[in-house]
Amino acid sequence: MKPKRNNTMTKKKVAVKKTQADQNPMRFTASGIISKKRDGKKLTNDEIRWFIDGLTSGQIADYQMTALLMAIFINGLDKKETAYLTDAMLYSGDVVEFEGRDVIDKHSTGGVGDKASFILAPIAAACGVKVPMIAGRGLGHTGGTVDKIESVKGFKTELPLKKFKEMVEKEGLSLIGQTKTIAPADKKIYALRDVTGTVESIPLITASIMSKKLAEGASGLVMDIKTGSGAFMSTLPKARALAKSLRDTASRFDKSMMTMITDMNQPLGLAIGNSLEIVESIETLRGKGPKDLTEISVQLAGGMIYLAGKAKSHKAGIAKAKKSIKDGSALKVFKDMIKNQGGDELVVDDYSRLPMAKEVYEVKAQKAGYISQVNCKALGLHCVSLGGGRMKASDKIDFGVGLVLTKKIGDKVKKGETLLKVYHNKSQLKLVEQIDVAINKSDIKLSATKPKTTKPLVYEIKEN
Amino acid sequence: MKPKRNNTMTKKKVAVKKTQADQNPMRFTASGIISKKRDGKKLTNDEIRWFIDGLTSGQIADYQMTALLMAIFINGLDKKETAYLTDAMLYSGDVVEFEGRDVIDKHSTGGVGDKASFILAPIAAACGVKVPMIAGRGLGHTGGTVDKIESVKGFKTELPLKKFKEMVEKEGLSLIGQTKTIAPADKKIYALRDVTGTVESIPLITASIMSKKLAEGASGLVMDIKTGSGAFMSTLPKARALAKSLRDTASRFDKSMMTMITDMNQPLGLAIGNSLEIVESIETLRGKGPKDLTEISVQLAGGMIYLAGKAKSHKAGIAKAKKSIKDGSALKVFKDMIKNQGGDELVVDDYSRLPMAKEVYEVKAQKAGYISQVNCKALGLHCVSLGGGRMKASDKIDFGVGLVLTKKIGDKVKKGETLLKVYHNKSQLKLVEQIDVAINKSDIKLSATKPKTTKPLVYEIKEN
Repeated sequence: MKPKRNNTMTKKKVAVKKTQADQNPMRFTASGIISKKRDGKKLTNDEIRWFIDGLTSGQIADYQMTALLMAIFINGLDKKETAYLTDAMLYSGDVVEFEGRDVIDKHSTGGVGDKASFILAPIAAACGVKVPMIAGRGLGHTGGTVDKIESVKGFKTELPLKKFKEMVEKEGLSLIGQTKTIAPADKKIYALRDVTGTVESIPLITASIMSKKLAEGASGLVMDIKTGSGAFMSTLPKARALAKSLRDTASRFDKSMMTMITDMNQPLGLAIGNSLEIVESIETLRGKGPKDLTEISVQLAGGMIYLAGKAKSHKAGIAKAKKSIKDGSALKVFKDMIKNQGGDELVVDDYSRLPMAKEVYEVKAQKAGYISQVNCKALGLHCVSLGGGRMKASDKIDFGVGLVLTKKIGDKVKKGETLLKVYHNKSQLKLVEQIDVAINKSDIKLSATKPKTTKPLVYEIKEN
Repeated sequence: MKPKRNNTMTKKKVAVKKTQADQNPMRFTASGIISKKRDGKKLTNDEIRWFIDGLTSGQIADYQMTALLMAIFINGLDKKETAYLTDAMLYSGDVVEFEGRDVIDKHSTGGVGDKASFILAPIAAACGVKVPMIAGRGLGHTGGTVDKIESVKGFKTELPLKKFKEMVEKEGLSLIGQTKTIAPADKKIYALRDVTGTVESIPLITASIMSKKLAEGASGLVMDIKTGSGAFMSTLPKARALAKSLRDTASRFDKSMMTMITDMNQPLGLAIGNSLEIVESIETLRGKGPKDLTEISVQLAGGMIYLAGKAKSHKAGIAKAKKSIKDGSALKVFKDMIKNQGGDELVVDDYSRLPMAKEVYEVKAQKAGYISQVNCKALGLHCVSLGGGRMKASDKIDFGVGLVLTKKIGDKVKKGETLLKVYHNKSQLKLVEQIDVAINKSDIKLSATKPKTTKPLVYEIKEN
């Protein structure tokens, strides 16, 4: 698990020629490399590696990195450069390695109410896939997988990488949080992008996702790329461009990849909030989940099963996934995972063991109509304001608060009927009333007639 | 001399409208402003001011500034934005103010062997112009005016701004170095540009020059923009673009400006090195200087005299300038300035009072021919390597070393004839031999026939 270089890069696909720079990297200067990209020229593997190594070691200053990030944002990186950047970021820290081609992870670009990982990972593991899941914490309007699972008392999301690897190999599944030693260059770069207007760059997003995911040691990845008003990639063309960039980069690293572009014009499922989402996930693993959440989870898990070679097609993978819900094997894997990672596995059969806010406020519709629009970001931020998420990294989370929708886009609503429930603490009544006003005023829009076109749940599926 | 805002900006020319931001500047975010420029949009006065004020106060991080600098480099700033940036940088520190329209300074974009300031400033002052000169130190291949004058024992280049102002008003001339309190934002930005590939940007160069020069309180400026192989603006179109940007910005601040694009394909005059250049300057003030140096000094001084209203035209200004050399009045001003600033004014009549290296090595031509090319930068760096300049800001300077050319472009050279003299210390013989090899091999090129086209000394003169 020590950093090695180029061993996961297929030599046939990426020719990493030894150049003078390997002997004498110091002929490079930071401003020289920045100027090259500034002028729209292509950077070499040696140049990118030298720069990222310098950032990791502290030889390159943050203010030099951000100048390069802006030049990349504006002038772009081609496929090769994106792979070089991914490689340099990947080998800035520890790398886990697995034998075999049946180690498959899933990554989502993030959406409100997205708890699919808790469903698809046990499904895939139940079907023989090894799932090494290193997930993130929430910041801003989207929740974090690690925060959500920590609703379960005792669940350890910090494990040594050695232990993580053993667990994936033996149990088929482990879910941990980001460690300091995985892709440290990505951590630095990500934090800098956030405050310098360089977030929405496809090559930078690609390198960030891929460097972390490759460091986990997966042989393949299923990517859930959200599109719509509540997503990072708000339009379908942008989502398609990111999907293609991810597939291209995966190919260069000899990793199998399936990209799925899915809808995020409304929250996935009904629950938003940590414990609430764990409950909904367990219900879904029982076969009693919301239709959209079940459908996406099964589609993604089916892709993982197929990429791992445990099914002959995606369709066959989906069939296996459905079966694992029906026969209870997926739920068993989820329960075992909780137990294996020190958590209270009895929550699976007794939701009262999860932290849950005592007060429930019902937001009623002030008029009748059909739900035509849901502002995902606003709902996510309401959950944050209740204490269910963080605006800054040091904020503490209240696992018990959140929102549960009772209606989704296209549903008919009578005046006075409940639109959603707010799980909150006693002291928060004033805040909850503000939420009520905001939801009725702008966050959930009603139309007089039923919306004609309903968006598909999955826009397109491609593999490399 | 306290920072004031907008009082030098002519209200008619730049409408600085009060907006909501004046009441609530915190609606801005650094990443929002950076993103705007990243996307090629125009920034408002409030946005630029908020960003630069934040940089000065430490609220905006260096890594945010460099991201904005790169976005500006690539996407540019228009005339208005350039003026806003200049204004924000100007009022980041102390500002000197003078009464009257006869306070004129000169600025050069920098060249090798450029000692024209020591000649034109006394000429202009002798003709009734008030000259507030705040000059820089050398870094890299170009020397610094402040370093050169410090060859004169006792000369104080650090004076309080109040004293500086008094001296300009009473004596007509003062020459000091940059202070920490003049345009501190420029200092920060300049240091960051140097290491992030964002130096060669016309709006950034304009704002840097103008913020410093406006802070001196001059009512007008003569700009010497060098072009050619030894200059920052290597081509005539680039030099023209910078000249125009400077004139436009000066107009917005109601300052008169004359821009002169002059040749820097070879050093100005013959001497390169601190004491050596002071000697050459005094000789020029005596009317015995090299033709090119005399010509440029008189042209620039003539412009200053004209802008100050002490002559009816540039031509008439030039005539006055020439007269002040002939009648010794310019030399007297120079001598008085040395005395006024605590220096040994006797150097004017006794060059042996200046530090001077004892050893003189003559570089001989290894073949016959006509001088066709001179590498200014290389010659500048030879002077630095002898100790006559600095590669990093903390380096100490040896005032006595340097080079003196005996021939210039177009001159005929016999084999074995001296090309230039190297003033050096005893311990530097090996280095001097290396310089000899470099000069004969590449730094001074000889052609078999006389070069047909000689470049003009002054390409064009414009005023706003």
